[in-house]
Amino acid sequence: MTGRDAAATRARIMAAAAVEFAEYGLAGGRVERIAVAASTNKAQLYYYVGNKETLFDTVFDAYVNANLTAVPLDASDLPGWVVAIHDYYVRNPTLVRLATWARLERTPTGDLFINRGGIDQMVVDQVADAQAAGILVDSIRPLDLFCLAVAIAGTWAQASINITATADDPVEENRRRRSALAETIRRAFCR
Amino acid sequence: MTGRDAAATRARIMAAAAVEFAEYGLAGGRVERIAVAASTNKAQLYYYVGNKETLFDTVFDAYVNANLTAVPLDASDLPGWVVAIHDYYVRNPTLVRLATWARLERTPTGDLFINRGGIDQMVVDQVADAQAAGILVDSIRPLDLFCLAVAIAGTWAQASINITATADDPVEENRRRRSALAETIRRAFCR
Repeated sequence: MTGRDAAATRARIMAAAAVEFAEYGLAGGRVERIAVAASTNKAQLYYYVGNKETLFDTVFDAYVNANLTAVPLDASDLPGWVVAIHDYYVRNPTLVRLATWARLERTPTGDLFINRGGIDQMVVDQVADAQAAGILVDSIRPLDLFCLAVAIAGTWAQASINITATADDPVEENRRRRSALAETIRRAFCR
Repeated sequence: MTGRDAAATRARIMAAAAVEFAEYGLAGGRVERIAVAASTNKAQLYYYVGNKETLFDTVFDAYVNANLTAVPLDASDLPGWVVAIHDYYVRNPTLVRLATWARLERTPTGDLFINRGGIDQMVVDQVADAQAAGILVDSIRPLDLFCLAVAIAGTWAQASINITATADDPVEENRRRRSALAETIRRAFCR
């Protein structure tokens, strides 16, 4: 197999694994189904991406990194960032489903990103800087404020224990949710 | 079997099912393990509580009802209520784990409580009343405000995609989180 073929096979496996794990989680996800969907076989799959746990973690990491790249924290406009995160979750339901399976099946307590070195310190520092600059309230610890902002952004996300929004929801409904998110963040955290 | 024996058997099944489903979810939960843990057998279990899906829904319902009874919404003191819900989640990790499995496995989009008739209208009405009374801001629709408050209460709960708190966390850490929750709700929603 050429290097290009190998990369293509690996990409197909990653794509198929994301679908499988988002739907069924780690324990319920089947390597056999992933191999079939990726037009390969289990032996090749294990060769390219390791065992099921490693594949799950690799896929989850890739989705987290894609999110961090697409919607990097902007602590100077926290209302805008939270709305953008909400939009991202609505458009990309795979990310939060993977994160939530990881939470239930892999890391039931503590920092979900402990295997990545924990929640990104740069994110926490950025909140602290915005507090020091008088943009955000400074009565809440930076890490706590970040966790609260993400929880608010996820109000209608795939792990919601009330309502999970979809891209098919009425436009007016989504407009109202976005406005409620921005107002909540502005009132709660902006000076 | 006497009526009292039957009730005791059913209670043991429910308790064992809560442990099993909270740990492994619906697909991963094993009726065989529940039967063994409840000192009964699969035939008796099916007789008393129906199939696995029915048992899951029954257990989930019981945990939701227990939560509604223990910490009923108090829209006249939303900061206090949100802190009490946070405390409840920390003390009773089973509830949110069951709710999150239900979300991932049963009802991936829309209202999680659709099979119970949807999110309790009395809760939404109570928020609307508190808005009309000038206690809560009225620029956010009552249902949206309720969803936001629950999401905030769950910032450190069992479906958090950042940090899940436990009863073993340092007292000072939990004190700071409770204070951040109360302040966030007060600033965001209270007039």
